[in-house]
Amino acid sequence: MRIVTSVAAMQRLALQWKRRGTSIGFVPTLGYLHQGHISLVKKARRSVGKRGVVVASIYVNPTQFAPTEDLANYPRDLPRDKELCRDAGVDVLFVPSDKQMYPAWDKAAEDPARGDARPTGFSTYVIEESLSRGMEGESRPTHFRGVTTVVAKLFNIVLPDVAVFGAKDFQQAAVVKRMVRDLHFPVKMVVAPTVREADGLALSSRNKYLSEEEREQAVALWQAIQLARQAVRTSKEAIPSSRLKAELKWLIETRPAARVDYIEFFDPQTLQPMANVQRGAHIALAVVVGKTRLIDNGRL
Amino acid sequence: MRIVTSVAAMQRLALQWKRRGTSIGFVPTLGYLHQGHISLVKKARRSVGKRGVVVASIYVNPTQFAPTEDLANYPRDLPRDKELCRDAGVDVLFVPSDKQMYPAWDKAAEDPARGDARPTGFSTYVIEESLSRGMEGESRPTHFRGVTTVVAKLFNIVLPDVAVFGAKDFQQAAVVKRMVRDLHFPVKMVVAPTVREADGLALSSRNKYLSEEEREQAVALWQAIQLARQAVRTSKEAIPSSRLKAELKWLIETRPAARVDYIEFFDPQTLQPMANVQRGAHIALAVVVGKTRLIDNGRL
Repeated sequence: MRIVTSVAAMQRLALQWKRRGTSIGFVPTLGYLHQGHISLVKKARRSVGKRGVVVASIYVNPTQFAPTEDLANYPRDLPRDKELCRDAGVDVLFVPSDKQMYPAWDKAAEDPARGDARPTGFSTYVIEESLSRGMEGESRPTHFRGVTTVVAKLFNIVLPDVAVFGAKDFQQAAVVKRMVRDLHFPVKMVVAPTVREADGLALSSRNKYLSEEEREQAVALWQAIQLARQAVRTSKEAIPSSRLKAELKWLIETRPAARVDYIEFFDPQTLQPMANVQRGAHIALAVVVGKTRLIDNGRL
Repeated sequence: MRIVTSVAAMQRLALQWKRRGTSIGFVPTLGYLHQGHISLVKKARRSVGKRGVVVASIYVNPTQFAPTEDLANYPRDLPRDKELCRDAGVDVLFVPSDKQMYPAWDKAAEDPARGDARPTGFSTYVIEESLSRGMEGESRPTHFRGVTTVVAKLFNIVLPDVAVFGAKDFQQAAVVKRMVRDLHFPVKMVVAPTVREADGLALSSRNKYLSEEEREQAVALWQAIQLARQAVRTSKEAIPSSRLKAELKWLIETRPAARVDYIEFFDPQTLQPMANVQRGAHIALAVVVGKTRLIDNGRL
């Protein structure tokens, strides 16, 4: 496995592969990898075959974190990530620095106290204005603009034929798919199923933040999804979403450390909220457990 | 010369060229071509050589026109454009329809009167937030977002190694260059000099709108640039830009049909306005002659 840290070297490599007709599979991550990521790598391998190449990237992208969020504390363990990637069959691990990804970022220009500050810095963003509005977009207003921008950058650097995203970040996958369609990126999007612990908790790098007690209570997200599914599948009529939300919120918040950020029922294609919930609808929820914000989703 | 009207066919062709290592030169235009465009085509040819391919596109992109602007009346003459491209050595002329470029555009979703409207439409934009702010960006607030978005789309469809833009749209070239840098498009940007009529008027498809009298008065833009250049080059000290602006405005508006929209002096790298003008500064101006808005620029 080759480790590449420079944008120019990664892009050169990708352009060489293109010239040779080598298929490129790509798994962008924030690192601190778990079996969920590994399942994406394996999906990428199946997509490009033995003769293709699989690139994974590890980059904790600052523009998708708000100033109040956990950017500085986001868990990192590069030695372990390298081992996991090597074992999973990654060909190239792309690990750029902030300086590589945002070379022109002019911190001075962000400081209004400096009279000589000039906007010579980074100034281009990709924005998605429909699917990104609700749920995570509402709770984290600048999040998706950071995601679409960095994914566009990574796509232009890695030039993938296939990119694999996890279904755990359902809205993210929908937003990136929309970007790929609207901007005609020559990339096939694959969304791979969420990997779960034995008790149903979705794998997430942020699970590391949980204390033992919080870890137990975190299963509430999965239980809420299951309860909603059961309710919808046993009801003859559509259920008012307000009622179902209230029930699930109550269920979740019986755990002392758990506080619901949002619960939403929506059309999985358009992400438009549904007033009445029936089979085929999608649920997504965000719950803060202790100080850790967890998300999950599922089809009902 | 091959004419391609489908996005999918154009992208397939481009991917084939990539696989063969063929260099792709690209000249995006709004059509109604003149010798300025032809000079860009020739520049593209010189960049990719005989064994490369030159693609020109003709697309009057609706998202870069405001509702009040001349989208519907923008001059078109496809038969003539084809002939000019063929003669200039274009290999592929890409002429997509709106339906090809914005297939998901949901007109219904734009109409708030329709209760069932769903945002299934086009929703991804590329925005540049620094260089695009002043001058054209101030006079035409949604213009550059349309430009960066459509250029990103075209780059993903045509996959050029080299793209050639005209210096006449100086700010546009700067904004697109910035986008290419910030998003790491694997594209080399070339900016080719403005081509002028014998009396100095910059070639523009919009010159077609001018009556005979207006055409005579339109030379005022070029004369203003020359006067500014002369003033700067003969002055021992930097000249306050407010004074120079007032003089040029007066000069231009002695023509009865001419009204200044803006005159700006700025750093050609950052596009930041300069309070005092000296050699090396750049001037850009927009002047409405009759009903036709013309722009021009030059280095002082």
